[in-house]
Amino acid sequence: MKVELENVLPRDIEKRSFEIITEELGDTPLIPGTELIVKRCIHTSADFDYAKNLRFSEGAVEKALNAIKNGAWIVTDTQMARAGINKRALARYGGEVCCFMSDEDVAARAKAEGTTRATASMDKALTLEKPLIFAVGNAPTALVRLYELIEDKKLNPELIIGVPVGFVNVVQSKELIMHTDVPYIVAAGRKGGSNIAACIVNALLYMLNDDRG
Amino acid sequence: MKVELENVLPRDIEKRSFEIITEELGDTPLIPGTELIVKRCIHTSADFDYAKNLRFSEGAVEKALNAIKNGAWIVTDTQMARAGINKRALARYGGEVCCFMSDEDVAARAKAEGTTRATASMDKALTLEKPLIFAVGNAPTALVRLYELIEDKKLNPELIIGVPVGFVNVVQSKELIMHTDVPYIVAAGRKGGSNIAACIVNALLYMLNDDRG
Repeated sequence: MKVELENVLPRDIEKRSFEIITEELGDTPLIPGTELIVKRCIHTSADFDYAKNLRFSEGAVEKALNAIKNGAWIVTDTQMARAGINKRALARYGGEVCCFMSDEDVAARAKAEGTTRATASMDKALTLEKPLIFAVGNAPTALVRLYELIEDKKLNPELIIGVPVGFVNVVQSKELIMHTDVPYIVAAGRKGGSNIAACIVNALLYMLNDDRG
Repeated sequence: MKVELENVLPRDIEKRSFEIITEELGDTPLIPGTELIVKRCIHTSADFDYAKNLRFSEGAVEKALNAIKNGAWIVTDTQMARAGINKRALARYGGEVCCFMSDEDVAARAKAEGTTRATASMDKALTLEKPLIFAVGNAPTALVRLYELIEDKKLNPELIIGVPVGFVNVVQSKELIMHTDVPYIVAAGRKGGSNIAACIVNALLYMLNDDRG
């Protein structure tokens, strides 16, 4: 058989991957200070579209890093994203990750209000008395609800990571977030996902401290 | 503001998404019987590359469905994939999802043998006395180890879902699996991920029973 494996030590695989990504990006322009986030999204998806579709509000990365250092909690819309976030690295700064999607009160509220569990789980996040970072990787309805809560001045998050994936209201929900004054990191267009949401949180954590916890 | 949301009921979002995917696929040729898997991968990633990169061994889908009906367990290489698999739907047939990546004995073995936790976690799966489906969404080293175990006749899985993502040995590890006689569903090339691994398992479950549990 002609399959030849590259001889890379386990601990060097990620480093070598980032070298390949950097090489293939060539002179693709990236916003200074966002490179590690963009490259980690490509690392997570093998999809170089993330070099073009990620949007950062002015100073978003610095504000996000400060929020994490100040103990911000992460609220996400899927158990997959929750599973993917490096919780030990986050705990160093006092943060925790919440996902209310499987909570019974959220299911009940969504049913009663004829909305989605994602919407109801964003409402539930209002009860957290913490600085909050939202990492939305699945449900555009979560982003729409965040937009409404921000417009109604009921919510003032530290950062919204707006990377739901899909075909119905995904593009629009991201545009809504980019119309707010809240710091954001958004994957414009249809792409994103729980993996991308988790990876952006992790990229921020590793920018603060590259010891993986 | 000019953002206009499409008016789709929560319960109809997925249906509408699949309609859009089907429409945009147009006359892209798909292997009969694999359509729901291909479309769910596109639904999960908004990446139409999955219409071209998914490879199915002869009869893989039918064999996979039978394995699930016969109580196969799923072994995966990330907690994210484990989180994403519909465990209630799987439990109908007696199956469970295992991920050994965070187990202390796996970490110890990987360290002692100078290998990855993914490799060691595939070895641990040998102790399961169940028909097994492997869903590998992250680590090419997991696929390489599965290949070795199969070649050594220590393992005879019902199906390998080989969809690690990345840049180092990912393409090669998938080729190794496609050289075995084991049923497989593989995303050729660099793309894949925990989300894709989970989504392929879920696609199979929903082909058996579209009630989401």
